[in-house]
Amino acid sequence: MKDPRRPIGVFDSGVGGLTVLSALRRALPQEDFFYFGDTARVPYGSKPLSMVRRFAWEIAGFLLRQGVKAIVVACNTASSAALPDLAEDLSVPVFGVLEPVAKAARGYGKVGLIGTQATVESRAYERYVEVSWAKACPLFVPLVEEGLWDDPVALLVARHYLEDAPQDLEALILGCTHYPFLKGTLARVLPGVRLLDSAEATAEEVARTLRREGLLNPEGQGRVVHLVTGDPESYRNLAERLGVKVEELKQVSLEEL
Amino acid sequence: MKDPRRPIGVFDSGVGGLTVLSALRRALPQEDFFYFGDTARVPYGSKPLSMVRRFAWEIAGFLLRQGVKAIVVACNTASSAALPDLAEDLSVPVFGVLEPVAKAARGYGKVGLIGTQATVESRAYERYVEVSWAKACPLFVPLVEEGLWDDPVALLVARHYLEDAPQDLEALILGCTHYPFLKGTLARVLPGVRLLDSAEATAEEVARTLRREGLLNPEGQGRVVHLVTGDPESYRNLAERLGVKVEELKQVSLEEL
Repeated sequence: MKDPRRPIGVFDSGVGGLTVLSALRRALPQEDFFYFGDTARVPYGSKPLSMVRRFAWEIAGFLLRQGVKAIVVACNTASSAALPDLAEDLSVPVFGVLEPVAKAARGYGKVGLIGTQATVESRAYERYVEVSWAKACPLFVPLVEEGLWDDPVALLVARHYLEDAPQDLEALILGCTHYPFLKGTLARVLPGVRLLDSAEATAEEVARTLRREGLLNPEGQGRVVHLVTGDPESYRNLAERLGVKVEELKQVSLEEL
Repeated sequence: MKDPRRPIGVFDSGVGGLTVLSALRRALPQEDFFYFGDTARVPYGSKPLSMVRRFAWEIAGFLLRQGVKAIVVACNTASSAALPDLAEDLSVPVFGVLEPVAKAARGYGKVGLIGTQATVESRAYERYVEVSWAKACPLFVPLVEEGLWDDPVALLVARHYLEDAPQDLEALILGCTHYPFLKGTLARVLPGVRLLDSAEATAEEVARTLRREGLLNPEGQGRVVHLVTGDPESYRNLAERLGVKVEELKQVSLEEL
């Protein structure tokens, strides 16, 4: 059963986790992936955590039935909702996006957090690092999905959300997988603050664990199959707006989960 | 069965339809209402129309089981998806938000339309009126829900969406129940263009039909029971940010639909 040639399953509510997928592909070019975007039920960030937890279990079960050797929960809300339970109860390694970036934040003085409403309210990051200031930023996801991350609109919205951030903030956790697109804009609003994104930190953690467990794929082709619960063409358009070329794409009905 | 003392059922994917509810209450102060917000599955605007159609049928069935005498689909996406079928197949009067405002638009020369992606792509307004220019504006809903409708951010976003509107536009249909909040901002960007919102037009149509059918409530108290599929407290907070006081509020699980 421990066949290292099996793919890695990555899931998110929609396209945000593609930033994590890209970091994983850079760190692990010989791995194959299923990327599952639950686009019929996006967004997770405004839903009750108990509901998001149920979605995470459904999708993890589905990915296991496709034969994945590891699961990456590439969504902060789902990581907040479903971890650590999912990792404890499944037989394959399961990774969330919170712990790796939170560990990276520990070296800094005052640490801030931005994310969806559900992530911020869950206080899940505080299991791993002391958070001095946290803010839900619901407009950032639609701004990114509109391709406006470098637009003056994004700058104005970022100023709106960050105006009450402490002056002596040293690092800011980008607690949503969409936010790496906004790094340039955020750096203009908070010059000198270290912006920590979960994609790179998570990819490093996954690579380290697979190596340790003897699960690195010796012969993978870097193949990615995208699975979505909503409209496939809308997904393709949105992914391509975010710079991700979608070659293999299938729709999964919610009844199959 | 034609008891005029029964309530009217109003539904939307979330809080947007509250603009329609408010117009209905002004036009029909003696009516009682169920307002159903499908907040567990919001937004509808980015989902496939076939899925939204299924949701609309589920909710209509639920409202009929609660004994409503009429149904108002206070959501442009659901109206686009489920009407006219729903009106033809149910035994109570069913109203969408498209036809009344589209009829009001007929008196103008060049008519534009703004709405969600699903509404714009459905071309449903074109059943009733010639639309010369149409644009999906996905950021408007989260902007309104953040309470930013009069903020400089809203002005910048409105300029972004409307920059390619024809110079000789005479009227603009606000094809989403959230958009009436943005009227002030839109008027600044498109001075001289008549902004047509569906809330008032729909309320007039409902009042006219109930009167004609002998269904006006002689003794209602203007009672409103809010029913939501997602988290009740989040709904209450959001509704109150939009100026609607929520007195009676119940959660409905998706399994009850």
